Formats: sequence, C-alpha cells, structure tokens
Amino acid sequence: MRPITLRVVHRLREVDIIYYDRLVGLDILELARRDAERVYVGKAPGCHHWPQDKISGVIVAAAKQGKRVVRLKCDDPGVCARGAEEADALNAAGIAYEVVPWVTAAIAASAAMGGFLTERGTCDALMLATGQSADAGKRPDWITSLRPGMRVAVYMGVASADEIAQNLIDASLAQHIGIDIVSNAQRSNQVIVQCNATTLVETIQSNAIENPTIFFLAWPQSVAVGQVDIECQLEHAVR
Amino acid sequence: MRPITLRVVHRLREVDIIYYDRLVGLDILELARRDAERVYVGKAPGCHHWPQDKISGVIVAAAKQGKRVVRLKCDDPGVCARGAEEADALNAAGIAYEVVPWVTAAIAASAAMGGFLTERGTCDALMLATGQSADAGKRPDWITSLRPGMRVAVYMGVASADEIAQNLIDASLAQHIGIDIVSNAQRSNQVIVQCNATTLVETIQSNAIENPTIFFLAWPQSVAVGQVDIECQLEHAVR
Repeated sequence: MRPITLRVVHRLREVDIIYYDRLVGLDILELARRDAERVYVGKAPGCHHWPQDKISGVIVAAAKQGKRVVRLKCDDPGVCARGAEEADALNAAGIAYEVVPWVTAAIAASAAMGGFLTERGTCDALMLATGQSADAGKRPDWITSLRPGMRVAVYMGVASADEIAQNLIDASLAQHIGIDIVSNAQRSNQVIVQCNATTLVETIQSNAIENPTIFFLAWPQSVAVGQVDIECQLEHAVR
Repeated sequence: MRPITLRVVHRLREVDIIYYDRLVGLDILELARRDAERVYVGKAPGCHHWPQDKISGVIVAAAKQGKRVVRLKCDDPGVCARGAEEADALNAAGIAYEVVPWVTAAIAASAAMGGFLTERGTCDALMLATGQSADAGKRPDWITSLRPGMRVAVYMGVASADEIAQNLIDASLAQHIGIDIVSNAQRSNQVIVQCNATTLVETIQSNAIENPTIFFLAWPQSVAVGQVDIECQLEHAVR
C-alpha cells in the first residue's frame, strides 16, 4: 500500500461520499465506512472522461446537499495534482474544506529506492516538476533551472520523455546527470531502473514503463562542469 | 499532531529503541511500545550536543547488539534531514535498514495554510531547499534558479533570513516574489504570516519566529518580468 496518514484514515471513516482518482488503490478505499458512496472520477492522460470542471462540479453539488465529502487523489493534493482548481470551485461556492497532507509521490519513490532526495554537500536542493504542462506545446522550462547540487523529480513524465531527453542533450547536460526511473512506487508492480538522457526513451520502451512514474534527475555537486556548459544552459534560459 | 503515516506507527510499535530528534512531539513518542527505550539525540542549531557522527555511531552500535532500532526524525528523512549520512554509516557497517517516507515539512506547512504547492499554469515547479549550508559561508545559490512559475520552500531559513532577503533584493526580485512564513506547522503553536523580501527580517523579529519554519517564496507565472531582471538574475548565476 502507498504510505497513508492517520488523518486520511480518519477522514475516510467519517464521510458520506468519496470521489476517487484512477490510481487510488482498492486497499485504501477499503478503509472507508462500509456504507460510504464511492464514485470513480478518474481521467487517464489523453482520454479525459471526467474533465476537471465536471469533477469540481460534482464535489460542490454533493457538499451543497449537506454530504460530507472526501476527494481522494492518488497523491498529495498540493503537488502536481490540480488540487488548487477544485479548491477554487469550493471557495467560489462558499464551501469550507480541509487540505489533508499526504506523502507525495517523489518522496515515496525515493524511499522505495532506499534513497534520499537531498544529501548535504552533494544535492542541497530538490525540484518537483511535472512532465505535463497546461500548455501542451510548451517546453519543460525547469531544465533551465538545473545546476550542480540539484535533484529534480519529474512527475508523470513518460509522455514527455523524448522532449526531456533532447533538452538535456541540447543543454550539454547528458553526461552530468544520472536518471533513476521509479514506476508504481510502493505498489506491487514497482519498477526501478537507471539510465541517462541518451538512453531514457529506450529504457522506458524496453521496460514497458507507464505512469505513474517519477524520473529523478541528479546533478551532483562533485561533478566538475566547465563554464561553457553553465553558459550554454543559461543562454537557453534567456532565449 | 504532525501528519503521521500508518507505517511509522507500526514501526514504533515493533522496535526496542528509538533515537529521536529535538522537534519530535511527545504525542508521537507515546505511540511506541511502552517498554521501548527512548533516547534523545537532538541537536539545536548552533549548539551541537550530539554531533552527526556520534548519532550515527550509537545507531550502528545498537543495531550490532541485535536491537531493532527506529531513528525518528521530526520530518521526512529524505528531505533536508541528513538521513543520507546515517544511511552511509549503516551501509558501511553492513546493517540493513528501511527508509520510511513521511509527509515533509513543506507539504505539511502548505496544507496548514489551506494551500497548494503547485498550481497548474501559475506555479508549475516547486523547489525544496535549505537555509543552512554544509559550508556556513556559502550563499544560498538556489536563488539563481528562481524563475516565473516557481515556488520555493526554504527549510530552516530563520538564521539565513537576512542573507536570503538581500540576495532577492540584489537580484531585483523583491517586488515579484511573495513570501509566506509558516512556523511550527500543524502544531499548537503554529504561526503563519505574509511578507516580502524587504520586510522578511522585520516580520521574523516582530513575530518572534523561530525554527522549525518554512519560507514559501512564490514567483507567479502571471507576473510580467522584463528581460533585464532575468538577465540580472542569470548574471548572478555565472558569477
């Protein structure tokens, strides 16, 4: 089971109705009250059966009927989970809500590797970014923020893998940055593989990697990098 | 109580000895087996009663005696928590361990504000960084990675607040970046205040803010910023 907090368990036991995502495990849903209503509002990338405004609409409608509602995402609602859009709808309708924190996927995935997201003196900063952009044609511009001593966790990056790899190669970063791929972290079908920018796409294909997946990109402090590379990267940023 | 996962509760009930940090709540320690030994290994910044290698040493020694050990930090062990140094000592001694993920302080603090760390189209990337550096004289160089559409959560930044504020002002970022200060998130003495770079130090003093504290720096995508500012920031990066 994915890491779950006591507060999530308590809330699941209290409410009348649960709207849950595609990747929520049945083991978590089983923690809810037996007679609570369970409504699937999942949306797979590329086939939006439940558009975001429809999800927000049913949550608001249920709350207005006086029902106690849990909106159960498969991850922390605050990180790359579009929680803010649903909260905006609740605010607009004058409905009070609580944001219950969760172990975000990057932390669960890193722990599954037995690893640490920051390491004093080697990786002092961690960036969490999404492989999916609101603007589909937009480049993943977090690449321009990379520097030695930084680790990046890319959420749901499988569909953008070729673009991410090409951007790293274009920025002359391929040889400096190691990539760990963690798919279905803390689930029974977990997969962990290592690669680099030049082998990323091939590694995904040969291991049949699908989302939910985290890519960890690490540029250790100890790897010496010439001024030229840094300038190349920065030039990229002002373009 | 700070958010706690079921797995943390299970581990606390199983082990013989718990080494715990300064900011671990008594309510969490009470979840442990009644006869488990509880050893305080706290270190307050500036007065290191328990240096890191001593902590690693006692953990390894207890495990070698066959004891089941929990090393209980006040936050996720993988983010700005020096977990890697203790794991290195365990690896060197050939002792198996499990990293149990937790809700990291930035997520707990953001949820306490009712907020979201990423917001699609406004803040697509989140950086977690520490206000304390292994090299005490070193500047907080994550400032050079800031760009529109990014939020930064600075852990334990109170002692570096004047330096962080000055760096933001020097990079002409003071007017673009809002700062939320969350101290003792999800605890009874929680404090939340807003400010900006020019008022950061004064706000900390007037509210008697102490660590554990998270500074959230947000540079929304929608704030238009001239090329000059970006260049100024990047020039900073290559210096």
